[in-house]
Amino acid sequence: MSEVYVIGAGMTRFGPQPEAGVHDLAFDAAWAALEEAGVEPGKVDIAFAGHAYQGPCFGQKVLMRGGLTGMPILNVENACASGASAVLGIVQAIRSGAAEIGIAIGAEKLSTPAGGFLPTVADDLDSSMGRVMPAAFAMQARLHMDRYGTTREQMAMVAVKNRRNALRNPRCHMQKEVTIEEVLAAPMIADPLTRLSCCPVSDGAAALVIASARAARKYNPRPVRIAASVLVSGLRTPHGIVDDKSEMSIRASRKAYEAAGLGPDDVDVCEMHDPFTIAEIIHYEDLGFCAPGEGGRFVEDGRSAIGGAVAVSPSGGLLAKGHPLGATGVAQIAELYWQLRGVAGGYQVPGARVGLAHTVGGGVSQLESGACGVHILVA
Amino acid sequence: MSEVYVIGAGMTRFGPQPEAGVHDLAFDAAWAALEEAGVEPGKVDIAFAGHAYQGPCFGQKVLMRGGLTGMPILNVENACASGASAVLGIVQAIRSGAAEIGIAIGAEKLSTPAGGFLPTVADDLDSSMGRVMPAAFAMQARLHMDRYGTTREQMAMVAVKNRRNALRNPRCHMQKEVTIEEVLAAPMIADPLTRLSCCPVSDGAAALVIASARAARKYNPRPVRIAASVLVSGLRTPHGIVDDKSEMSIRASRKAYEAAGLGPDDVDVCEMHDPFTIAEIIHYEDLGFCAPGEGGRFVEDGRSAIGGAVAVSPSGGLLAKGHPLGATGVAQIAELYWQLRGVAGGYQVPGARVGLAHTVGGGVSQLESGACGVHILVA
Repeated sequence: MSEVYVIGAGMTRFGPQPEAGVHDLAFDAAWAALEEAGVEPGKVDIAFAGHAYQGPCFGQKVLMRGGLTGMPILNVENACASGASAVLGIVQAIRSGAAEIGIAIGAEKLSTPAGGFLPTVADDLDSSMGRVMPAAFAMQARLHMDRYGTTREQMAMVAVKNRRNALRNPRCHMQKEVTIEEVLAAPMIADPLTRLSCCPVSDGAAALVIASARAARKYNPRPVRIAASVLVSGLRTPHGIVDDKSEMSIRASRKAYEAAGLGPDDVDVCEMHDPFTIAEIIHYEDLGFCAPGEGGRFVEDGRSAIGGAVAVSPSGGLLAKGHPLGATGVAQIAELYWQLRGVAGGYQVPGARVGLAHTVGGGVSQLESGACGVHILVA
Repeated sequence: MSEVYVIGAGMTRFGPQPEAGVHDLAFDAAWAALEEAGVEPGKVDIAFAGHAYQGPCFGQKVLMRGGLTGMPILNVENACASGASAVLGIVQAIRSGAAEIGIAIGAEKLSTPAGGFLPTVADDLDSSMGRVMPAAFAMQARLHMDRYGTTREQMAMVAVKNRRNALRNPRCHMQKEVTIEEVLAAPMIADPLTRLSCCPVSDGAAALVIASARAARKYNPRPVRIAASVLVSGLRTPHGIVDDKSEMSIRASRKAYEAAGLGPDDVDVCEMHDPFTIAEIIHYEDLGFCAPGEGGRFVEDGRSAIGGAVAVSPSGGLLAKGHPLGATGVAQIAELYWQLRGVAGGYQVPGARVGLAHTVGGGVSQLESGACGVHILVA
């Protein structure tokens, strides 16, 4: 398969932006990405726009704000993996020969429409009975604690680390340092997860300009190669009510490592799906950064900090930067692009050459599988 | 670019099906397509599901009804062109080398959720001021009448033809013949369009199994080649309030003819976007079947009937078969697949070798561009 590169990225600030329309946020990100790439809007051959709840013809409305129309625009949804799906769509379009340059957009506005509450699905018995996301992750946390001795303090360390990383990233929703004690003492959401163990409700948008090898050479002396673009579907917990791992994450990351010809030890920087502190601990294990059960110790030993074995969510991650659903998968890859070019500023991972973006969404109900995207980028 | 084939198709009946869930309808279509193709569900490498209003992780919910999960599933939206977008997604995935076999699903349930009324978009000034779809098409009809002398009777003939075609297609929503006089005497919706000039509000689903050349050979002795898969964006009427043509349809069809190395004269059968009678007349011209302004005479002379120069919407089209938004683009190509294999039964177009599917959606508001898909299939 032909090689595909990121040649530009753009992103808004994440966080509540009640005064800004979601199409305007996405437009700002898209135009910033085009400007960074040095690509005139008219040179874009295809667009994929990822979002979950923003209405029909989303990408068309975004791009029309810049007068941009004509090319194919596809709107894609995959819950929290909507943005990753948009990137995959562009990668496949370029590899198919149908496009030289594409733009992947991800955006979501969660602060206004329903007061921050996501609509529940009428036929989803699990969530209508109370097994909403915080509850599902809390049960995973209890199992991980019981089975491996993972502690509340270790989970809190994930929030402490990602909040600290966020202090250096001006786009983050949360920009206040927290202590382990503060995380533990925050209001309980779903035991053992307190409010500071959960990602906030954020608005935001991100965009990537992606190009074939030929087009990348033309526009960018240092493009970043997409060495793997993998999407899988599956259940959050395929074999029962609760599990201490994410089968989708294991499977998607193994496929991505194989496609890239790389392994977990090669990854310098990872933007990870960390909507709750326990998720990051479990995903260290899923992605192969440590053995099953050792995720608590991994964060405690500083191995996921900037300067550790693999810097996890140096941007602040979902926990501190925010998680506007459709934006997240695109934003993660934008962060990696900046990291691998060495321009991430205060939260730069020194010498980063290989980056991995991981996002997983949906699939709580046993009636519905979700999606997991893993992208590996190489400088 | 490598060649891509349709190797199986499935479809539910179109029309109100209040007792059936939309996921069940889509599942029935998908499993019928797999069965016709002789492909085991586990052999599917990727799925694209097109719909407009059916909620998150739609394709996942559909395929989980058959226990099918694991592969990438992308949910795509493009208003009335959602189904065509799903097909394009599969074509690009196969051409990229990421998949050998894919399934494109399209579905919509319009009869129940909001009583058949589509949600209006809050920031769409045009439709909130009354320029909803019937009004927009009525204005086009008035312009076409004024400019070219197109008559109410000629427009009515489109409904008469498509209703007659539908008598032989058991999947159609409307299965009662109508006369020109009945069309003209029906309740007025938006002058000159009466209720019988408009497509009904339908539920339904369709699916296609699409394969690389290698996989197609393995499963199907007579696969149907997708010679062109084109999607464009644009405004319904780019240069003002009303126009007597569809710029998107002209542009998409020209690109498709070029990709296929064929012209309008080569097309034997066309499944066309005919939500209103005037649309079919305008699109005869847009797609090059006749010169601008001659669409009224084209239908009057029987040139779009089965047995005419090009059989247009032999399935009954949107006007008689129905228009469950996301289903339509996939269903059109399913109809062509059956036509080009000579198995369309009572509404078979004799000797059909080249088929064209055309669908166009969105883009009424000047703030928003829409989408137009054109696929050309060759036996």
